[in-house]
Amino acid sequence: MKRIVAGLLLTGLALPAFSQTADSLMTLAHKLARVGLESGRAYSDLKDLLKIGPRMTGTARADSAVEWAVRKMRSYEFDYVWKQPVEVPRWSRGRKEVAVAKVHWKTDTLSVTALGYSERTPGGGVEDTVVMVRSLAELDSIGRGVESKIVFFNGEFDKGLINTFQAYGQAAQQRGRGPALASYYGAVGAIVRSMTAVSDDNPRTGMTQFPDSIAPIPCVAVSPVDADRLASKFGGEKPVRLMIDLRSKKDDPVISNNVIAELTGTDFPTEIILVGAHLDSWDLSVGAHDNGAGSVQVIEVLRLLRQIEYKPKHSIRGVLFMAEEMGGIGGIEYARMATWNNEKHIAAIESDRGGFTPRGFSIQADEAKVQKYQSWAKYFEHIGADKLVKGYGGVDIGPLGDTGTQLFGFLPDSHRYFDYHHSAMDTIDNVNERELELGAVAMAIFVILLDQYGVQ
Amino acid sequence: MKRIVAGLLLTGLALPAFSQTADSLMTLAHKLARVGLESGRAYSDLKDLLKIGPRMTGTARADSAVEWAVRKMRSYEFDYVWKQPVEVPRWSRGRKEVAVAKVHWKTDTLSVTALGYSERTPGGGVEDTVVMVRSLAELDSIGRGVESKIVFFNGEFDKGLINTFQAYGQAAQQRGRGPALASYYGAVGAIVRSMTAVSDDNPRTGMTQFPDSIAPIPCVAVSPVDADRLASKFGGEKPVRLMIDLRSKKDDPVISNNVIAELTGTDFPTEIILVGAHLDSWDLSVGAHDNGAGSVQVIEVLRLLRQIEYKPKHSIRGVLFMAEEMGGIGGIEYARMATWNNEKHIAAIESDRGGFTPRGFSIQADEAKVQKYQSWAKYFEHIGADKLVKGYGGVDIGPLGDTGTQLFGFLPDSHRYFDYHHSAMDTIDNVNERELELGAVAMAIFVILLDQYGVQ
Repeated sequence: MKRIVAGLLLTGLALPAFSQTADSLMTLAHKLARVGLESGRAYSDLKDLLKIGPRMTGTARADSAVEWAVRKMRSYEFDYVWKQPVEVPRWSRGRKEVAVAKVHWKTDTLSVTALGYSERTPGGGVEDTVVMVRSLAELDSIGRGVESKIVFFNGEFDKGLINTFQAYGQAAQQRGRGPALASYYGAVGAIVRSMTAVSDDNPRTGMTQFPDSIAPIPCVAVSPVDADRLASKFGGEKPVRLMIDLRSKKDDPVISNNVIAELTGTDFPTEIILVGAHLDSWDLSVGAHDNGAGSVQVIEVLRLLRQIEYKPKHSIRGVLFMAEEMGGIGGIEYARMATWNNEKHIAAIESDRGGFTPRGFSIQADEAKVQKYQSWAKYFEHIGADKLVKGYGGVDIGPLGDTGTQLFGFLPDSHRYFDYHHSAMDTIDNVNERELELGAVAMAIFVILLDQYGVQ
Repeated sequence: MKRIVAGLLLTGLALPAFSQTADSLMTLAHKLARVGLESGRAYSDLKDLLKIGPRMTGTARADSAVEWAVRKMRSYEFDYVWKQPVEVPRWSRGRKEVAVAKVHWKTDTLSVTALGYSERTPGGGVEDTVVMVRSLAELDSIGRGVESKIVFFNGEFDKGLINTFQAYGQAAQQRGRGPALASYYGAVGAIVRSMTAVSDDNPRTGMTQFPDSIAPIPCVAVSPVDADRLASKFGGEKPVRLMIDLRSKKDDPVISNNVIAELTGTDFPTEIILVGAHLDSWDLSVGAHDNGAGSVQVIEVLRLLRQIEYKPKHSIRGVLFMAEEMGGIGGIEYARMATWNNEKHIAAIESDRGGFTPRGFSIQADEAKVQKYQSWAKYFEHIGADKLVKGYGGVDIGPLGDTGTQLFGFLPDSHRYFDYHHSAMDTIDNVNERELELGAVAMAIFVILLDQYGVQ
């Protein structure tokens, strides 16, 4: 399929639907960067989206974000734009959480926030002795020793790691699985150190999982500064006690939506290359980086392809998934429906690591395949996004992988992500227009390469 | 000199003074990243330095910064710490500048700031008709047509370029040389669009040059938003007029200082590898990125080498230059004294592009030499700083290049730099601790490679 296109440069940007030469692809990669930096829409779209407020799954604002996305995609005149219904859970934190540490007669109010799916406390809160652990293994070694107590998970984010996602992956175990393990051993509550390299007073929320067989217990995240303060209270004669008062609640599931846009392929319209990100956010902020950034980048990838009049051979889908933060629910539903409809997704790229300066892509494949993709690095050198490495695709596209779709994760620079992640700090002030836009440019280039060369 | 060091790993971090194997250098490069990220001091040193306030050349605060640097370097117990006197000019902007655009009876106050070395206006200000140009060439074509008028340089920062320093280099011509050219053609004032990709209301200052043969005129920078507003006034029937009132003044030169620290080499103590940055800043902010960041990184490079107990063969000098913003004066004096003292500087690295995530180094040499250095890229891959490219070293180390010193420039990611550069926005809030520290780590690795392998 690799015909040489004579006189391509004469046709300007109105590119024909058939295959491109390597030279013309390089020209296109450079053109995309200039077009994006000069007249890209990712940043203005993000400012627009964030005006809605936090997009917590199952809320009216999440619905507004869905409608916003549909309108925005239609305004860019993509070939098809539609909503895909998804049943989503509802959990809300209610009144501001309270946590007070007590040693003898001294009390100390901590900066906390409930974890998603946390149980509420009985009226008046729970109060009990605190047991501090630094890992799930340490809790296992104590076992029933935490019965009727509150477990303080104080494992630290390993800030000595260069890739902050690696540090997060390690530390997040205690948030995701710690409270359930504490409940299993009979604890009545849990408090978890926030996962970040910075030392500030912002607690970071996030989902915790309680399997059906385990009773949910009240659990909160505590800011890094207050985790240190709480830890410093141990070692004296008097026990450390903690009072937690949470008013979180679950409501019945409701129907929300994934939002899908398509540029239909000229040669292989039933073969799909997907670019996706989740549209929902946590409730503590507008989720500028997590994942407003990815959401507008997905739209921007399609818009950029339109702007340069690229005619894809395969169908290019932009998908905004709902309820990622509540368990990757939109992604699961999307894959289920793709199987149901017998759709063929040849590749999927996810953006869910923030809108920072692009560094490259992770490729969810074996080393031999990864090496093949590395021959594409040259198309990303000009924007500094040429690290093509073995790694994870993403939560939302994960379920597609089970049906043979090749998965890729967009990799922006990771240093700042966990400064803001799941906290009140995840706002537009911390997003840079050029960095955000070049992330979309990087993905647009990747989509074109997949469209031209196919999966390797 | 490349002896194999048997049992090196057994010696832990107390590295001997003789040459390292490639393996042990790689271990060292990784160790430096972890040590820096876990216990680095660049960010806390920066917060400390910025408490002094703006470090404008010739001011008491610049003197305080010199004393701060001496104390800080001594506290880290570097082998030698000393001050090198430099005669520096003094220029101050005085009372807040005023610029009012007038079309017929409508007036519009613009957000402006005087350019460094701008002349003050006569009492009551100057007011005259404005001629808008977009380049020095356009001004040349008008020539004496600007006599007794005010020239508005409205050339735009090319935000379509990926490297913002390239865009700055192009646009900054009109700030650096525009007012002098306007004066040459008889203009009585100049107003220059601020050099940045963002559209905000902050004017960006910077130095402008008036050769001895040309009379200085009053000149200001105008914010991007107000440059657009001013430009929009042209094209009507009525002329656009501008009133500028500046109270800037020059005072007699004073003696300030460069600050120098040294780790003395074991084998070649008279051969120097220099790491440098300028300590002075503009007066509109504390100069967090320009160049507080570089200043603390220079100190941090030496401190990191100390912390890992690296014993350099060559002498490693950290130099904080004074008065870079006023014409690279500290750098010129340093090179003059180096020649005077017959010192041999084999290499110099400058950090003056902000404290952002490290990307690599520019090498001021021909392609053949650059390719040799590229074999070192592997030592920077883990921190994502492996772009070793042909390019400019820096203003302060430039004069050393004339005596045969090999020059290198540290290259952080450039997207955000001109958002803050020379404006009131250049504050600590816009510096990320990890990014800043890893810049120092990158330079420490580079210094070790130069120390082990020499210049190529």
